[in-house]
Amino acid sequence: MKRKVAILGATGAVGQRFIQLLQDHPWFEIEVLAASVRSADKKYKDTRKWILSSDCPPEINEMTVVNTDIKSVEKAGNVDFVFSALPGGIAGPVEEEFAMKYPVVSKASAHRLEVDIPLLIPEVNPDHLAIIPIQKSNRNWNGFISTDPNCSTIQLVITLKPLMTFGLKKVIISTMQALSGAGYPGVASLEIIDNVIPFINKEEEKTESEPLKILGTFDGTRVQQANIAISSSCNRVNVKDGHLQSVFVELEEETSIEEVVKSFEKFKGKPQRLGLPSAPDNPIIVRGEENRPQPRYDRDEGKGMSVVVGRIRNDPILTVKYMCLGHNTIRGAAGAGILSAELMAVEGYI
Amino acid sequence: MKRKVAILGATGAVGQRFIQLLQDHPWFEIEVLAASVRSADKKYKDTRKWILSSDCPPEINEMTVVNTDIKSVEKAGNVDFVFSALPGGIAGPVEEEFAMKYPVVSKASAHRLEVDIPLLIPEVNPDHLAIIPIQKSNRNWNGFISTDPNCSTIQLVITLKPLMTFGLKKVIISTMQALSGAGYPGVASLEIIDNVIPFINKEEEKTESEPLKILGTFDGTRVQQANIAISSSCNRVNVKDGHLQSVFVELEEETSIEEVVKSFEKFKGKPQRLGLPSAPDNPIIVRGEENRPQPRYDRDEGKGMSVVVGRIRNDPILTVKYMCLGHNTIRGAAGAGILSAELMAVEGYI
Amino acid sequence: MKRKVAILGATGAVGQRFIQLLQDHPWFEIEVLAASVRSADKKYKDTRKWILSSDCPPEINEMTVVNTDIKSVEKAGNVDFVFSALPGGIAGPVEEEFAMKYPVVSKASAHRLEVDIPLLIPEVNPDHLAIIPIQKSNRNWNGFISTDPNCSTIQLVITLKPLMTFGLKKVIISTMQALSGAGYPGVASLEIIDNVIPFINKEEEKTESEPLKILGTFDGTRVQQANIAISSSCNRVNVKDGHLQSVFVELEEETSIEEVVKSFEKFKGKPQRLGLPSAPDNPIIVRGEENRPQPRYDRDEGKGMSVVVGRIRNDPILTVKYMCLGHNTIRGAAGAGILSAELMAVEGYI
Amino acid sequence: MKRKVAILGATGAVGQRFIQLLQDHPWFEIEVLAASVRSADKKYKDTRKWILSSDCPPEINEMTVVNTDIKSVEKAGNVDFVFSALPGGIAGPVEEEFAMKYPVVSKASAHRLEVDIPLLIPEVNPDHLAIIPIQKSNRNWNGFISTDPNCSTIQLVITLKPLMTFGLKKVIISTMQALSGAGYPGVASLEIIDNVIPFINKEEEKTESEPLKILGTFDGTRVQQANIAISSSCNRVNVKDGHLQSVFVELEEETSIEEVVKSFEKFKGKPQRLGLPSAPDNPIIVRGEENRPQPRYDRDEGKGMSVVVGRIRNDPILTVKYMCLGHNTIRGAAGAGILSAELMAVEGYI
Repeated sequence: MKRKVAILGATGAVGQRFIQLLQDHPWFEIEVLAASVRSADKKYKDTRKWILSSDCPPEINEMTVVNTDIKSVEKAGNVDFVFSALPGGIAGPVEEEFAMKYPVVSKASAHRLEVDIPLLIPEVNPDHLAIIPIQKSNRNWNGFISTDPNCSTIQLVITLKPLMTFGLKKVIISTMQALSGAGYPGVASLEIIDNVIPFINKEEEKTESEPLKILGTFDGTRVQQANIAISSSCNRVNVKDGHLQSVFVELEEETSIEEVVKSFEKFKGKPQRLGLPSAPDNPIIVRGEENRPQPRYDRDEGKGMSVVVGRIRNDPILTVKYMCLGHNTIRGAAGAGILSAELMAVEGYI
Repeated sequence: MKRKVAILGATGAVGQRFIQLLQDHPWFEIEVLAASVRSADKKYKDTRKWILSSDCPPEINEMTVVNTDIKSVEKAGNVDFVFSALPGGIAGPVEEEFAMKYPVVSKASAHRLEVDIPLLIPEVNPDHLAIIPIQKSNRNWNGFISTDPNCSTIQLVITLKPLMTFGLKKVIISTMQALSGAGYPGVASLEIIDNVIPFINKEEEKTESEPLKILGTFDGTRVQQANIAISSSCNRVNVKDGHLQSVFVELEEETSIEEVVKSFEKFKGKPQRLGLPSAPDNPIIVRGEENRPQPRYDRDEGKGMSVVVGRIRNDPILTVKYMCLGHNTIRGAAGAGILSAELMAVEGYI
Repeated sequence: MKRKVAILGATGAVGQRFIQLLQDHPWFEIEVLAASVRSADKKYKDTRKWILSSDCPPEINEMTVVNTDIKSVEKAGNVDFVFSALPGGIAGPVEEEFAMKYPVVSKASAHRLEVDIPLLIPEVNPDHLAIIPIQKSNRNWNGFISTDPNCSTIQLVITLKPLMTFGLKKVIISTMQALSGAGYPGVASLEIIDNVIPFINKEEEKTESEPLKILGTFDGTRVQQANIAISSSCNRVNVKDGHLQSVFVELEEETSIEEVVKSFEKFKGKPQRLGLPSAPDNPIIVRGEENRPQPRYDRDEGKGMSVVVGRIRNDPILTVKYMCLGHNTIRGAAGAGILSAELMAVEGYI
Repeated sequence: MKRKVAILGATGAVGQRFIQLLQDHPWFEIEVLAASVRSADKKYKDTRKWILSSDCPPEINEMTVVNTDIKSVEKAGNVDFVFSALPGGIAGPVEEEFAMKYPVVSKASAHRLEVDIPLLIPEVNPDHLAIIPIQKSNRNWNGFISTDPNCSTIQLVITLKPLMTFGLKKVIISTMQALSGAGYPGVASLEIIDNVIPFINKEEEKTESEPLKILGTFDGTRVQQANIAISSSCNRVNVKDGHLQSVFVELEEETSIEEVVKSFEKFKGKPQRLGLPSAPDNPIIVRGEENRPQPRYDRDEGKGMSVVVGRIRNDPILTVKYMCLGHNTIRGAAGAGILSAELMAVEGYI
């Protein structure tokens, strides 16, 4: 018996990826598609422009979309939990409404930094799920909210986790982010042709704050933020999928490049140990070529769930510098949510 | 009477820019076009694919290209000095041959780091020209070599110069560089469509070493390297012209963003004071929008000779971070050479 | 004394081009900027994203935008005539309201095919302006409406006009149209990266019908449609500006390629004879290279007002085939309107 | 027992596709990789830049490349037949050398139009294989040459074949072709960014002549050319893979759009009837949307072996117009060769 799921924000770019990745999922099946009033009561195929390369499954196209409120969703079907791909602006109250009754696995930024809500990367901080009972008790909810980080944060933090053993202190990143990160319609073609846009709204703030929580320590009551400093400069480039980052890190311990490479290559997390359906064999793949990773060549590694690292070299100012790449709408969005839900399913939260 | 000039490497991407920018130049005129044996003795129009938007001037097209040796050039015309746009690999000995008799203003990397050869940005270190007499004496040359820095170095260092007054200590950059920086044919379209290439051969080494010499102090005998540290990560993006850089700097003195902005805006150099023909009114232009500079919109500022800076903000790890943009084949290449020659003309070197 | 003009639809992509091209215009000056309610009463700079490379003139930025109704415009200033860059959907009634009092030079499609309204290309059918008195009498208007054709139509018809002397019968075109033709935000970057979109709404209908009116004969009472047949297939490609067309034509008379080339090269119209300020020296420029015209290299010919033709060759099925290129937002939009107004000014219509 | 094959021209863009598509092929296995002298005696991984998204198989990377002469190939292994992905210029004599002993399935243009050599599309003219015995007898060869058409030709002709039943008379096409069609390095990025190139060397000649042979009738002795006329205009656009064509056709019989659609949809060929491993279920897929096919969305249909057609509509001049799209390096190149070889295997030619 598969768990039945509602997707809130099902018509957007991330909602579409959820639909694509949940096709033939062994544990979960889509029961309800919810979106804004504008789409409610229409067939899914009449609500949006499908932007993925593979066609939308015909049976999904024929489903009737409902409004994103708990009554409408419950009228449309019995669901075990909810994926939220809602826009940041409206996710806050809607997710809280659902959390009173249902587990909410959210890609939205609204609740990420709240102290009793997990900000989860299953390979990095699975123990943070233990905040959930505290959250339910605090808020008197039958359900709960667990959040997934910002797309750029996820891939970065997966590479920072193994570096924690070397005494990670400082992280400077400059990102080159893909168009799909802005959703649809997102970036106008007239803005990005023959161009780079050196600004993404709120992205620097997110990538500077979220990792501190994710890499923090759960002390049984709350998460103590990690004692690291991050500086970020975020840019939009003319690439369809795949965020690429120049990363400069300072490590307290003297460390060789070989040790860093080894720490990346041998890094595995709970999803790998549990064999979760969406877990890639290797959360981090290291490429040895002088000019990799590259978005078009490397974004689909591990079905888009692996982070690809390359050009690991000594840094003349900090300690080490490297490039990292992740698929922003798979590992950075819908795939992240599904992997989180898989972990929660195994751990008994959903 | 205009000074007559030979262009070595006249058929390449930088050579073409020299030709374009020297059209109607008030002080210089093209007398000889020199290139490799493959092009020698052909009409210029039959030697290359012209890659600039404005057509090649017809009278240039009809000129006969000669081989890049001193005899062939002298046979073709009397020249007062030489611009070298030769490829790094072959520039070394050829430029030395010409320097025995002629001033050589070189865009090539071969001699940049040699101790008695200026590495010049006219707004930044015009006093380094005083190495030239030492060079001539050292090498027993009637002419001399003066070099222009790497394209990414030039725009970076123009923005670093005013920051020196605040006690500049550390600089971390991540670049997003344009296709024209790789010359023609350069980057294959199949490599860059929907992609970023996180590697440019030797670019990180150049941008980490050249600024130390340019920002160094000439003590009457030699240049003492500046006491700053630089770390660089270089990327190729799908943009025609205009290198964009994320820059993070550490300053010793406490400084406000307003003071940094003011130091950029009021920065002028000797070319501005002398009113050199190719000098932009403002070497640095500061844009206040949250999403500028952008290559397609800002690269032509000051006829491609201004560096455009934006997003100047506090850095959580170092002191300040900002974006800077420069036109890589104008300010970063041919325009740099011409401005250098203009300064040398006024100063009596050519 | 310059004629004062209001721009209706001043905030859109074509409105911006009108503003740019009217800077320093010798005959016309901008008096009023009008746009939809959403922009009314705001400073121009606060109403839109400026999408052109050169900055918006500061004095324009400070102008207050008014609503596009006649009262609001009149309250804002005294105008001699009106440029309409309104969206097709709303242009119809608004232009009619203004035409009761003012000459309206319209880029909108609403009235193009009406029998008593000129569809004007100044080089092609300047005599069609004689419909205006009939229109004013018919409609009892003090002003009038004159329309400019669709962007793809204009460049095509300029090349068809000289071919009329050879007995033009059939025209088949396949277009590759630029992003700016869709306005801003227009085409989403996610749709066009690594892609072509083989459909542009209503474009095939427009390019198949409008030329018949433009190339038709004014018999003193009305325009008799030209007896030619046109078939069109329209595509959007990843190019910023410049529509490129593959054109196949059937001519009744036996004609050599040389004669066709000559007919293009010697083609001049009334704007050239009158020396109108925006008239290019050559409405058609023929390139002899095997691979021209190309959008990025040729779109700015004649300040964007020339149509560039190339690859003129025999056609195995019809008679001749060739490529033609025009700048879609200059010759195809704002520049077309300004040139039309210049002609009307000389002819005493405005 | 799989048939063993040598790939001539194994290092180029088409050679790489052959390698990719032959991985795990049920009938064929790669025994020898041959390329020019420059690559000979090196490991495959040291000979080229791999340009496909999926990595080159490691065991292929370790194979030693040999020179493309029969002795070197025979020394390297026993092969049953040969795929030729050689450049047009050198394919002629090399293929003839191999054909004296081996079946040669060639993607090169050298022999396509020779009267006793098949120009094969397995769905279209499988009966033309019967020329092979005549060829062997004519030329006194133990092997033979069979050729695959130009990439644009293949996808076009697959759509023309079902139209033959309606009395196909005239075909006019304008193509928008992908970058990968030019091989690697192929088109320089500086040439195609923000641009279209309206010229591809020899492409118009090939697409105008090859279909006449393919659609011709084998009368037991030779192929009688089909009595149709074709005019072609070929353009390069900024798309990675997938050639898109605007097609205008004249049919003798009165035909409705529905009948044309049906003829496309029901079209199957011998590869489908035989269930060949590389045969797509549907050689032609019809999309009903107003804006399809599009290269990025539709090029991988049928694993890149289906041609996707859309926008089928009446033509005001000829009879019908439509868009067609095919993956140029799969259906248009390596996949075409493999499907041809599969047919020849079943028919006993190899």
